[in-house]
Amino acid sequence: MDDTLLMLPGPTTVDPRVLKAMSDNIVNHRSAIFGEIFTETTELLSEVFKTENQSYLLTGSGTAAMEAAVANSVKPGEKILNIVGGKFGQRFIQIADSFGIDAQELAVEWGTAVTPQQVEEALKNDEDIKAVTIVHNETSTGVAAPIKEIGKVMKNYDALYIVDTVSSLGGDKVDVDKYGIDICVTGSQKCLAAPPGLSAITLNDDAWKVIDNIDSKTYYLDMKKYCKSGAGTPPETPYTPSVSLIYALFEALKIIKEEGLDNRIARHETAAEATRNAVKALNLEIFPDESVSSATVTAIKMPEGVTDSDIRGIMRNKYKVELAGGQDHLKGNIFRIGHMGNVSYKELAITFSALGMTLKGLDFDIDMGAGVSAVNESFL
Amino acid sequence: MDDTLLMLPGPTTVDPRVLKAMSDNIVNHRSAIFGEIFTETTELLSEVFKTENQSYLLTGSGTAAMEAAVANSVKPGEKILNIVGGKFGQRFIQIADSFGIDAQELAVEWGTAVTPQQVEEALKNDEDIKAVTIVHNETSTGVAAPIKEIGKVMKNYDALYIVDTVSSLGGDKVDVDKYGIDICVTGSQKCLAAPPGLSAITLNDDAWKVIDNIDSKTYYLDMKKYCKSGAGTPPETPYTPSVSLIYALFEALKIIKEEGLDNRIARHETAAEATRNAVKALNLEIFPDESVSSATVTAIKMPEGVTDSDIRGIMRNKYKVELAGGQDHLKGNIFRIGHMGNVSYKELAITFSALGMTLKGLDFDIDMGAGVSAVNESFL
Repeated sequence: MDDTLLMLPGPTTVDPRVLKAMSDNIVNHRSAIFGEIFTETTELLSEVFKTENQSYLLTGSGTAAMEAAVANSVKPGEKILNIVGGKFGQRFIQIADSFGIDAQELAVEWGTAVTPQQVEEALKNDEDIKAVTIVHNETSTGVAAPIKEIGKVMKNYDALYIVDTVSSLGGDKVDVDKYGIDICVTGSQKCLAAPPGLSAITLNDDAWKVIDNIDSKTYYLDMKKYCKSGAGTPPETPYTPSVSLIYALFEALKIIKEEGLDNRIARHETAAEATRNAVKALNLEIFPDESVSSATVTAIKMPEGVTDSDIRGIMRNKYKVELAGGQDHLKGNIFRIGHMGNVSYKELAITFSALGMTLKGLDFDIDMGAGVSAVNESFL
Repeated sequence: MDDTLLMLPGPTTVDPRVLKAMSDNIVNHRSAIFGEIFTETTELLSEVFKTENQSYLLTGSGTAAMEAAVANSVKPGEKILNIVGGKFGQRFIQIADSFGIDAQELAVEWGTAVTPQQVEEALKNDEDIKAVTIVHNETSTGVAAPIKEIGKVMKNYDALYIVDTVSSLGGDKVDVDKYGIDICVTGSQKCLAAPPGLSAITLNDDAWKVIDNIDSKTYYLDMKKYCKSGAGTPPETPYTPSVSLIYALFEALKIIKEEGLDNRIARHETAAEATRNAVKALNLEIFPDESVSSATVTAIKMPEGVTDSDIRGIMRNKYKVELAGGQDHLKGNIFRIGHMGNVSYKELAITFSALGMTLKGLDFDIDMGAGVSAVNESFL
C-alpha cells in the first residue's frame, strides 16, 4: 500500500495499534460483549467532548452528524442562523435547505472568523431563530472560530447552539458543557486519528426537549431512535453499526486518554505554531490572520508564479508528502497543511524538508533549511 | 477477542484476507490511488448485482441505502406501494412516512411470500403508485420473495421497482438488469461477507430520470451528489468515505469473483437445504413454507416447552455458537440460523452438533447426531 505521508486536514495517519484493533473478529452488534465496547467507546468520547451528556456513534461521514444535528432539532419553516466563513459553514445552509428549514446566513469573509458581537446582533435582530450553527474549525480556510466566547452570548438566547467540531475535537479546546453547546458533532478521521467512516454527536437536555417535540424528517439519522437503542440492555444502535470502525475508534480514544487530552491539545498548538513559523521562514504567507489561524490545519497563500499542481504535485510525486489544495473559489489560491491527530515534530520536519526542496526546485530564493529549523525551534 | 461462531443473518464471519486488507494504511480519499480502488470495487459490485449500471457505495448501514432508494425517487405526497411481510418490509413504510410519502401497504402474513398476482392487482387498482418496494430476503421471517416473477409484472407498469437485496446479494439469485429492477440496494455484512458499515445502491436510467426531477429531501443521502462525485476524475464520494471498509469490501468482492458467483449461490442453496434437512432431522419445524424458505437464513419454530433463552442461551454460552432470535411479535416464537457469506459444511456441522447437544440437554427425545448427518448428506 501507498506510504505517502498524509498532511491533510483528514483523514490522518492512523496508529498501527488502531489498525490492529480494527482487524479483530467481528462480533454480534447486539451482544453483551459488543455492548461493553460500545459503552466504553461512547463514554471515552463524552470525556473528549467534556460533557456529562451521552454521546452517540453514527455509521456515516461527519456530514451525517451535521445533518442529524440540524434535521432533528429544527422544524421545516423554522429559522436557523448559519454562520458561514467557508465550505463547511455553507454545508449547514445546504442541509437546512434540504429539510425546508429557513436558513439565515451570517456570512463572514473566507479566512476571517465571526465575532461574538456579530452573533449577538443577529440574534437580537431576529427572535425567531431556533438554532445557530457554527463550524469550530473551518477546514477549508484554516480558521478557528471563538466558540467559547460565542457560547457566552448564546446563554442569553433560547436558540440551540450547534457546533461542528469535526476537525477540532481532540486537537483544539472544546468544552461542550462549559461553553453551553447544546449539540456537538465530530468525525473519526481528524484529530481523533481513527479511520474515516464514523461520526459522533452529543446532545444536552435542552436539545432533547426540542427534539422530542419534532417529528424527525429523516429516518436513518433520527436521533430519537439512537437514544432509545442506546438506552437498551445491552446498549445498541438502531441499525447495524460498523463494528470494526468502533473497535478502531475505541483504541484511538484509549491512545488519547493515555496521552492526556490537555497534553494532546498542547501538542497540536505547538505543531500549529511550528507550522506557521516554518511557513514564514520559507517566505510564504499564512492565509488567515494569525490570531484566528487553526490549531489543526494551516492555510497558506499560493505564492506568485506557481500553480497548485507545481507545489502539491512535486510534494506528492517527488517527495511523497500529501498536502491539501484550496476548495471552491480558493482552489489554486491557497494550499493547506493538516497537522492533526498523531502529528509530531517528525512529520513536520519531513513536510518542511520536502517543502524547502520543492520551493528551491521551483527557483524560489529561500533558505531551504529554514522551515525545518523553525519547526525545531518550536518543539525544542 | 471473542471466538463465538456467528450463525447470524449478518454480520457474518469475515475472511482473514478481508481483515488484513482492511488494516492497510489509510490513503487520501481524493487521490488517484484511492480512485482506482474505488472504481474497481464499484465495478465488482455491479458484476454481483448483474447490472450494466454504475453502483454507488454509501458510508452507512443497509438502512441508509433503503432510505436513499425511497427518499430520492418519490416525492412527498406521492404514493408508494410497500410490500410488507416482516420487519424490513415495515422499515420501508417507516422511511416513506418520515419523508411524507403516501405509503400503501401490501401486507402478507409474516412467514409467507407475496405473489406476483397480488402485486399486479395492487398496481391495477391504483395507477398513482410511483414506486414499489420489496425485500428480496426478509431476514426477520426467513422468506425469499419471487423478485424475478414480480419483475415481469413490473415491466407492464411505470412504477419504479425498488428491491432490497441486503441479505441476499451474493447468496441468492439477483439479476438487476434481467429482472428489470430500477433501484437495488445491499449491505456489506451479509452474503458479501465484508464487515458492517457500508451499503451500496445501483440505479438504472429510468430511476435517474425520475430522481433528476426531484429535489432531494435528504442531504447526506442525496444520490445526485454521489452520481456527480462518482463521475469525477478521480471518482470520489461527496463526503469522506470509510476508506478501510472499502479496502475490506474490495477484498471480499475479489474472493467472490475467485469463487465464482454461480458457485457461491449454489453453495448457499446447499447450505440452506442442509440446514432445513438438519432442522427436520432434529424434530424441529421450519417457520415458513419450505417453498419460500430463504437461501441465506432459516427461521425455525421455537419448540414447545422451551424458551428462546434456553436454546439460544445454551448455544451461545455453553457451545459458543450465536444464533438469532425472533423480532417483534415473533420474539420467543422463532429462532434463526444464518447461513450466509463464507458458510460451508464446517460451520453447519458445528452448529448442528451444538444444537443436538443443546436439545438433548433440554431433554428432547431426539437422535443427537441426526442434524449433522443431514448436513453431511446435503454436502456429500
